[in-house]
Amino acid sequence: MPVRRIGRPAHGEREDTVAVEEPLEVRLHGQAFATIMRTPGDDKDLAAGFLLSEGVISSADDLGAVEHCRHPHHPEYHNIVDVFLTRAAREGMDQQLRERRNVPATSSCGLCGRLTIESLERRLAPLGCAWTIDAAVAGALPESLRAQQRLFDETGGLHAAGLFTLAGDAIGFAEDVGRHNAVDKVIGRMLLASRVPLHDTVLAVSGRTSFEIVQKAWIAGLVVICAVSAPSSLAIDLASAGGITLLGFVRGGGFNIYTHADRVRAV
Amino acid sequence: MPVRRIGRPAHGEREDTVAVEEPLEVRLHGQAFATIMRTPGDDKDLAAGFLLSEGVISSADDLGAVEHCRHPHHPEYHNIVDVFLTRAAREGMDQQLRERRNVPATSSCGLCGRLTIESLERRLAPLGCAWTIDAAVAGALPESLRAQQRLFDETGGLHAAGLFTLAGDAIGFAEDVGRHNAVDKVIGRMLLASRVPLHDTVLAVSGRTSFEIVQKAWIAGLVVICAVSAPSSLAIDLASAGGITLLGFVRGGGFNIYTHADRVRAV
Repeated sequence: MPVRRIGRPAHGEREDTVAVEEPLEVRLHGQAFATIMRTPGDDKDLAAGFLLSEGVISSADDLGAVEHCRHPHHPEYHNIVDVFLTRAAREGMDQQLRERRNVPATSSCGLCGRLTIESLERRLAPLGCAWTIDAAVAGALPESLRAQQRLFDETGGLHAAGLFTLAGDAIGFAEDVGRHNAVDKVIGRMLLASRVPLHDTVLAVSGRTSFEIVQKAWIAGLVVICAVSAPSSLAIDLASAGGITLLGFVRGGGFNIYTHADRVRAV
Repeated sequence: MPVRRIGRPAHGEREDTVAVEEPLEVRLHGQAFATIMRTPGDDKDLAAGFLLSEGVISSADDLGAVEHCRHPHHPEYHNIVDVFLTRAAREGMDQQLRERRNVPATSSCGLCGRLTIESLERRLAPLGCAWTIDAAVAGALPESLRAQQRLFDETGGLHAAGLFTLAGDAIGFAEDVGRHNAVDKVIGRMLLASRVPLHDTVLAVSGRTSFEIVQKAWIAGLVVICAVSAPSSLAIDLASAGGITLLGFVRGGGFNIYTHADRVRAV
């Protein structure tokens, strides 16, 4: 997809290849069990491995059929794997299913990324656009974030998320072994201070940008996401729909702008 | 904690600081809603941000109280946050709770990591130890993994997981935007080929090692985990309990051994 490049290599439009992210709905005997945000491919393997990890099956003997099926009303979508257990495994499973119904942590509809985004659009309004950010400010945020990462310095094992004003001033910071947790922590702190929805605020993350991170940013009203690493395809699509300016590979002062590039002032 | 170091800096015992991972149980009016594997600290923020992302609350106005509580029977644990919604938010919530009961994707018990591990120990036997791996083979696995990462080369945005024999031969590989998905894919493929439990097999991952990754490895019978980045505290504890040799920071031929170091032949 086309991106706008700031910094070296030279400013301007260029093509960037992004990792595809789409929801996969895992069904048990036709009933939705979980929706997993994943890169398409090896879907039956993913469903089988996931059910093993979840303790739904304990060996290949528990599996009857694993079918990559099309949705009856939407044959164009391929994001469903239906798993049929053997009778013995199913009887053991029914009790579990009654006790624990799985819930996707996202608004994923299990059909495709486009419909997942539409379901969010019905709930959330696109963010306003009466603001701009200076390219030099955005390019410096990862270093500001890194400077606060005390635990990372000690362990090398933590993700970080920070909130900054459009002028680059730090207003929140969190570290966690889970990157989604770090984002929930900085946003949650603002929520408890009754400062959500946030306005004219940038979210900086130490890693990659997934669909879920953009979803959290949109819900909190964050207008810019500044990530040290790459975004997924669905993260880009959601940022576009939400009116969020998404920056990736923000390193050494340069970065790629994936969405709403007109809000970045490159002077 | 003490680790055994192979390669530069010099071989031998040394101290390593690791990121703490513990389960946090988020309750709604005393009822378990979700268990999140997280780094302790800012727990109320995490719970508030998580419930906002999940759509349980839409603003601070929906929150009554957020309490960091002790378990009535286990006052020594601090891994529970109980959230009380306002009456209006609760009435809206009850319907949701009936429709979607949240499930931890792990065996976390929500009290502490130690009990979480004990619940897995009741289900799984420690892996056998009639094998060793050559330090030079282990040190070379990240490069073998990296050589297979075609999509990462193109996008910079994917995690990878690979399976190798103890002699270093590749027997499985997957890439995904989600690192847990990549592990589920390689293990799931073996499961569908009726090759699980795996024997004398190494799991190599491109990133960090969490509790969940060790859990998946243990369930599949994998005896060595070789990670490019850092493990969490609970990943180390679980690998120790499961008889799994856990290597971290495997870079440039050197690495740290966190558990069961006696199975690595450093010649």
